[in-house]
Parts: sequence; structure tokens; C-alpha cells
Amino acid sequence: MISEMMERLQEVLIFLFLAIFPKATGFKPCTKDSTSIDVGSAYCLSWRLGVEANNVRAWRTVPAQCFRYVETYMIGGQYDRDIGLIVEQILSYANQIYLSDDGMDAWILDVDDTCISNLLYYRGKRYGLVQRGFKVFLLTGRDQETLGQATLDNLQYQGFIGYERLILRTAAYKGQSAVTYKSQIRKQLEEEGYRVWGNVGDQWSDLQGEYLGNRTFKLPNPMYFVP
Amino acid sequence: MISEMMERLQEVLIFLFLAIFPKATGFKPCTKDSTSIDVGSAYCLSWRLGVEANNVRAWRTVPAQCFRYVETYMIGGQYDRDIGLIVEQILSYANQIYLSDDGMDAWILDVDDTCISNLLYYRGKRYGLVQRGFKVFLLTGRDQETLGQATLDNLQYQGFIGYERLILRTAAYKGQSAVTYKSQIRKQLEEEGYRVWGNVGDQWSDLQGEYLGNRTFKLPNPMYFVP
Repeated sequence: MISEMMERLQEVLIFLFLAIFPKATGFKPCTKDSTSIDVGSAYCLSWRLGVEANNVRAWRTVPAQCFRYVETYMIGGQYDRDIGLIVEQILSYANQIYLSDDGMDAWILDVDDTCISNLLYYRGKRYGLVQRGFKVFLLTGRDQETLGQATLDNLQYQGFIGYERLILRTAAYKGQSAVTYKSQIRKQLEEEGYRVWGNVGDQWSDLQGEYLGNRTFKLPNPMYFVP
Repeated sequence: MISEMMERLQEVLIFLFLAIFPKATGFKPCTKDSTSIDVGSAYCLSWRLGVEANNVRAWRTVPAQCFRYVETYMIGGQYDRDIGLIVEQILSYANQIYLSDDGMDAWILDVDDTCISNLLYYRGKRYGLVQRGFKVFLLTGRDQETLGQATLDNLQYQGFIGYERLILRTAAYKGQSAVTYKSQIRKQLEEEGYRVWGNVGDQWSDLQGEYLGNRTFKLPNPMYFVP
């Protein structure tokens, strides 16, 4: 019940995001797989690259002239392709790792817009990690007290199972930046003896700080910035 | 004389790169400012994003199906736009820094494909850094013994003056990876008392390791990867 509400909420948020596009400029939903990009979008492509390469930081909203571009990017097929290529990179790297038999080879995945909304792309692929013997830790800045059960339900409802542990933000970490909070959790995992081979997130704040793991993977997100 | 040769060499290398494009597929030079991207290029856009976000690593050559895409990107206007947006970000950030009067506020810039081939975009802008009072250190993996004088000449010939120091690779660092070598040099600069506010390079190996400085800026380079 709660999980359905969460999913519904997520859908509502996406539609809310899309709804703020300037209608006056002749807004027109883009067809799937439309990838022709007009000259006016060239700036937005630079901006998106700047975001993904961590050159553009601390932005609060998508630049007004890029609303339509970001919408086309998200639902027009290119976002799916970008995710697909990164998942390929992840699996290709993961398959080269020689796992020890102590069960301490681990990956860390962010939750929002990493596990949750990209589920379609991981479906059938995430088992590539779990089945090979990696321990998968889901690490989120969501508050444990208020969102703990809903997040568990949401993950289960979406079929995201087989992970080792879901780590939410407890009271001790309240008010900390994502970089500070997540660095401490990763440190604890290393102290428990885990070898973190990969760290996957849609925000650079998931992938910066300390104890990053052997490799990081940045999933695209031109919709919002988490400091 | 040497500097002209260096510049000529650089031009030759770019043309060599372009010359290996598969002629059989109907190679056609692209006009300036052409930014329409066909569906076949969608994969290459994902690949380029993967490179710039440091998801695709240790690649030896541009994927064959992306030769034309990369050429269009480099000479068709989008590379220039990408650089322009990053330079804007650099200056906007640099202008917010409150400089101390001890002359120890510093930036580190890589040389190849950061200072040298992007000179046009920095021209008239780099003085934004130097004139504000920053000390600019140019840090390159080029060998001091064999390329030291040529690099100095090349920079001067291109009008790249006003920097504090050009740091080339001495015998002590031979054979080290870029990350290891550059981390040590940055550590030395911090030990000299410099506060490194920004670190600019076209390779992630310029921007990873230790003593990275307060912010890093990744300039695009879909042509080659330096580990």
C-alpha cells in the first residue's frame, strides 16, 4: 500500500517536473527515440555534460531554456541509452573482478534515481552482481525513522531483492551533507572488512569524499542536484 | 623554430586522427556549427558522456562507429561550446574567491589539450586568473629533459605568459602514472604553502589522486585517454 503510494508519488514528481515546462513556447511531447537536436539545444547539451562531469555544481534548477531539452533527454530515449552504456561498463568491470571466497566483496548503490527509478534497466542485470557473489549495500540519505519502512516496501514492491543491507540516515547523521554522511558509512563498511569494488550513484555527492571504493560510476541526472 | 615545429606536429596529429576515419562509409567533412545528431550517433553521445563522467575508462581508441561523430564534435562547434561553458564556470567560481594578500592562492592547469590547444578560448580569459592575483602552475607529464625547452617555447609562442611555474616530469618521476606523479607535485605545492583553489585538466588522471585542490574542472577530450 505504502509502496504503491511511493511509486505514485514518484510518478507525480516526474509529471510535476514536466508540467512546469513553458507551455507558451509550443510545448510538444517528444516521440520515443527522437534524437535530432536543434542548434538551440547545443547550449543545453554543454550544460548537461558540465553537470555530468561535475563542472557545473550547486545548481538549483534546470536553466529555463533547457526545460524542453531535459524533457526530451529523459523520455526521448537518450537517458535510457546513457544508463544502458553505464550498466554495460559496470558489468564488464564486475566480471573481471576475481572474487575471494570470504564473502566480503561488495558494491555500494545509491537508492533514488539509481536503484529505484532505473529499475527497468537493472532488472535481470542486478543479479549479475548478486549472483556472482558480491554483497550489495544500498546507501541512501533518506531518513530512517520516517522513510525506512516505506523505502523497504518500495524496493520490495519493485522486485529489488537480494541486496545485503539497506542503510538509511539515522538521527546521528541528521543535517550532515551527503558527502560527509556517506563517507562515514563507507568507512564503517571497510572497517567491517568489506572490499568495496564499485560505488554507483546519480549524484557526485554519492561518489566524492572518502572510502570511495575501487571505482565509481556516475549515472546521469540533469533534473536535480544534491550537495 | 621549435615552437612552430611543435604546433605543426600538433596539427599533423589531429589530421592523422581525422585521416583514419573509414573513407568507405562516405566520409564528409562537417560544416561548422552543424549540431544535428542522427540516431546512429546516439550511442556515440552516450559513449562521450561516459568518458567525460569517468564511467568509461582505459579505452585505447575511439569506438570505430564513433570516428565521424567525434570529428563532428571536435570541429563542428560543440567542443568549442563545451569548453566555453566550463571556462564560464571557472571564472564565475574564481571571481567568488576572496584572495588573501600573501600571494599563495593558486590554480593548477594541465598543459596538453588544456592550455595548449584550447588557447583560443583562454586568450583574454586566462588573465582573469592571473590579474586577480592567482598564481598559475602549469603541470604536465611531459618529460623535462627532452621536451622542457620546446614546451616553454611552445607556450610562449602561443602567448601563454604570466604563469608562475611550468612543472615538467623530471627523472625522479619517470614511469609513474599521471595520478601518482601529479599527486606528489600537488602535495609539494601545498607544502610550499599554496592554497590550490582550482585544478583544470582534460584527463581524469589530472583530477584524481591526492591534494586535488578545492575544485576540479574536467575539459572534454574524446580523442585519447591517459591512465
